[in-house]
Amino acid sequence: MATTYDLLILGGGPGGFDAAVEAAGSGLKTALVEAAELGGACLNRGCIPTKLWLGATDAVDELAAQAKMRVATGSVDIDFPALQARKDKYIAATRKAMGMRLAQLGVDLVAGLGRVTDPGNVEVLTADGPKTLNYRNLLLATGSRPGGFPGVIADGAKVLDSTGLLALAAMPKSLIVVGGGFIGLEMAQAAQRMGARITLVDALPRLAGAEDPEVSKVLESVFKRQGWDLRLGVKVASVKTRGEQAVLVLDSSVGGGEELEADCALIAVGRRPNTADLGLEALGATLTGAGYIQTDANLLAAPGVFAVGDVNGRMLLAHAASHQAHYVVERLLGHTARPYASGPVPSILYGAPEVFRAGIMAEEAKALGSSVLVSRAQLIANPIAQAHAATAGFVKCVWRDGKIAGITAVGAGVSRLACFATLIIQQGWTREDASGFMFPHPTLDESLKAALLADKEAV
Amino acid sequence: MATTYDLLILGGGPGGFDAAVEAAGSGLKTALVEAAELGGACLNRGCIPTKLWLGATDAVDELAAQAKMRVATGSVDIDFPALQARKDKYIAATRKAMGMRLAQLGVDLVAGLGRVTDPGNVEVLTADGPKTLNYRNLLLATGSRPGGFPGVIADGAKVLDSTGLLALAAMPKSLIVVGGGFIGLEMAQAAQRMGARITLVDALPRLAGAEDPEVSKVLESVFKRQGWDLRLGVKVASVKTRGEQAVLVLDSSVGGGEELEADCALIAVGRRPNTADLGLEALGATLTGAGYIQTDANLLAAPGVFAVGDVNGRMLLAHAASHQAHYVVERLLGHTARPYASGPVPSILYGAPEVFRAGIMAEEAKALGSSVLVSRAQLIANPIAQAHAATAGFVKCVWRDGKIAGITAVGAGVSRLACFATLIIQQGWTREDASGFMFPHPTLDESLKAALLADKEAV
Repeated sequence: MATTYDLLILGGGPGGFDAAVEAAGSGLKTALVEAAELGGACLNRGCIPTKLWLGATDAVDELAAQAKMRVATGSVDIDFPALQARKDKYIAATRKAMGMRLAQLGVDLVAGLGRVTDPGNVEVLTADGPKTLNYRNLLLATGSRPGGFPGVIADGAKVLDSTGLLALAAMPKSLIVVGGGFIGLEMAQAAQRMGARITLVDALPRLAGAEDPEVSKVLESVFKRQGWDLRLGVKVASVKTRGEQAVLVLDSSVGGGEELEADCALIAVGRRPNTADLGLEALGATLTGAGYIQTDANLLAAPGVFAVGDVNGRMLLAHAASHQAHYVVERLLGHTARPYASGPVPSILYGAPEVFRAGIMAEEAKALGSSVLVSRAQLIANPIAQAHAATAGFVKCVWRDGKIAGITAVGAGVSRLACFATLIIQQGWTREDASGFMFPHPTLDESLKAALLADKEAV
Repeated sequence: MATTYDLLILGGGPGGFDAAVEAAGSGLKTALVEAAELGGACLNRGCIPTKLWLGATDAVDELAAQAKMRVATGSVDIDFPALQARKDKYIAATRKAMGMRLAQLGVDLVAGLGRVTDPGNVEVLTADGPKTLNYRNLLLATGSRPGGFPGVIADGAKVLDSTGLLALAAMPKSLIVVGGGFIGLEMAQAAQRMGARITLVDALPRLAGAEDPEVSKVLESVFKRQGWDLRLGVKVASVKTRGEQAVLVLDSSVGGGEELEADCALIAVGRRPNTADLGLEALGATLTGAGYIQTDANLLAAPGVFAVGDVNGRMLLAHAASHQAHYVVERLLGHTARPYASGPVPSILYGAPEVFRAGIMAEEAKALGSSVLVSRAQLIANPIAQAHAATAGFVKCVWRDGKIAGITAVGAGVSRLACFATLIIQQGWTREDASGFMFPHPTLDESLKAALLADKEAV
């Protein structure tokens, strides 16, 4: 008789993997189906390799900042093939460790593409042919992949998506980046530190368009000073490979049909959910928007079928996926019957400057007709920002009914505020709570303290 | 008729300055007496200049870490006179801003040495002669200065205390550091990054003797690999200037009378309270230990006389002083009548590695007969530690009755855990609290999550 799994998971990225570990660790009979590699986009083609690039090149930026103050001289040269080899080795070792963890916990790992044939049954196309798995509960965690739009699609030659850029054997001397969101900005920074001249194009009139407009202003000013050619508020007609170059043509209605050339182009215009051929129609699950799986308040896509992570479109962040996965397992174990509540979700842009955000932003509150106040502190007043000669940026707090409801920050190292800021938003701290807390001195964290205690202003 | 101040403050360091700002901002008639410079040891001769040195030289360490992985090559040279000029300029500007803030708030700043003549009256020796000030409440915040012991005292020639080292015009090529506490370790790291060969001597058998012994082990291993000559568990007979060199003689009963020579020696063997000539006898205040002002549960040294910061010997940390100052003003304003409660006090060693600690440590609990469990995570498993090629170190949690009671960490960048860790200790989080919190991915903070969720072991 075939095993019926308590939990069958499609997708071994952060959401699927964490769910498998927690479910199996709690005694649920668990299987995980993965068509490609454990770790998903985050480990193999996203967050992790990008952070390895940025971490490895941090000295370039630290030196540049001190050199500008005439305190240091020197040079830092990155051996790109060596960095790529180190990255690939680290990722492979992590995948291996993940596989061993699943094996230790008794999770059945099935390699292949899974598809629901009817409720309770999934067919996996394995290397040894199709295999049917039975489940009591199903978790869809199939993630997302880089997106594009007509005329602006990676061709794998000189026009690349994030996956293609991370796989390069040599860093191009010039790079066109289409998309000024977090993915584009992190990759552009890393590429520049390794010698690439950056041209960045976005249809929005500002960088990091999802962030507070004041954050965008700091980013634009820092990157312009670093020599980036920023083309904001322009429309791209096409990006194509022409011989050994990538050629971007701006829409003639806006940009006058101007052509931009570079050794390479990166298309970083968002991501698309992996929902094709999952057999969702057999489950009665619904797709919304760009193809995301619709979930109810309990993360259910259909009876006994949960969807977590990028694929449900709630929040395309690895830790959001993990948090949702934890909820699903808690629910299966009967530890909670309440609807899923994410609380404030932190998001981070790495590099220099960094950006951090959690909770509601002033503009969002305004758009919702919610009355908020804001308070701010500039990093230039902070001794640690001064020590790193990286004083551009600020911390901004959003208050609603006397309680902290949102925090954003931009500047070198501000990601360190993330956990604490997220927690105090979750707990709805008042200014008095903040003034009674002992912030260690001297720390960049004191810029958050200063922002929390600064005078509140209307938006 | 002479003004009677609601609050008269002796000492303009972090405790005294913050008290003045908060008191005057709340409408109390306030005066601040400062014999030397606003900002105290922290700004002028301690935390801040040391952090400016460490921040400015950060690229040296980041590059070295990547070079060891063969991912980067290059060199970073610090222009020490330029760095010193920048440091002095920043400190002077900060002092000026502090003075302006006091003036704005209507605080009377009196330059000179203050001395209590009888309860209610302080005589200040100003440049224009003695001046008497009357108070209703007095705050003693006179701080501390570098210590020494017979034979091991800064002579200002080649044997320096921290103040002397920070004032140097040229960085010595070799430096003997007497004292393996936080001050010695931060200064030694900065000096090494600027080319000094380090010999560090301590009577204790391990570095950072106040920390968890496992923390000491990581520090010793990292600094040994960096080429430091560590002489631990040895006694110093004397340190003297001999011609152009500093000469340290080890006690013959332990170290065989061996002589160590270097261009300079730093004496970093703790600090001494500034309590001489304050006229404390007129108040009936009591000194304890090495001369610290004894305070009761309400930080009172005598009726109407509070003492905060280094001078009360509770915790020689700037943020502890500021926190105590906040309490004193809250008390004067009638906002609290409860005894002072510090909560867990975070402490940080900067450099690479960093050390963070808050709450109770396993060995302390054991010594108190308190039953605790510990859980750990190694930084090598963290992708951000990997990205910076700085994987030595760990996060260690101490649990009492199922609640988190202490956290310590050692490794590159672990100071970023400080605020969040301090708060969750204060709130007594359980493991379930930790597993429900959304730690952003990927962050070094996830090493704290891993430690919080790891199996607990007996000590």
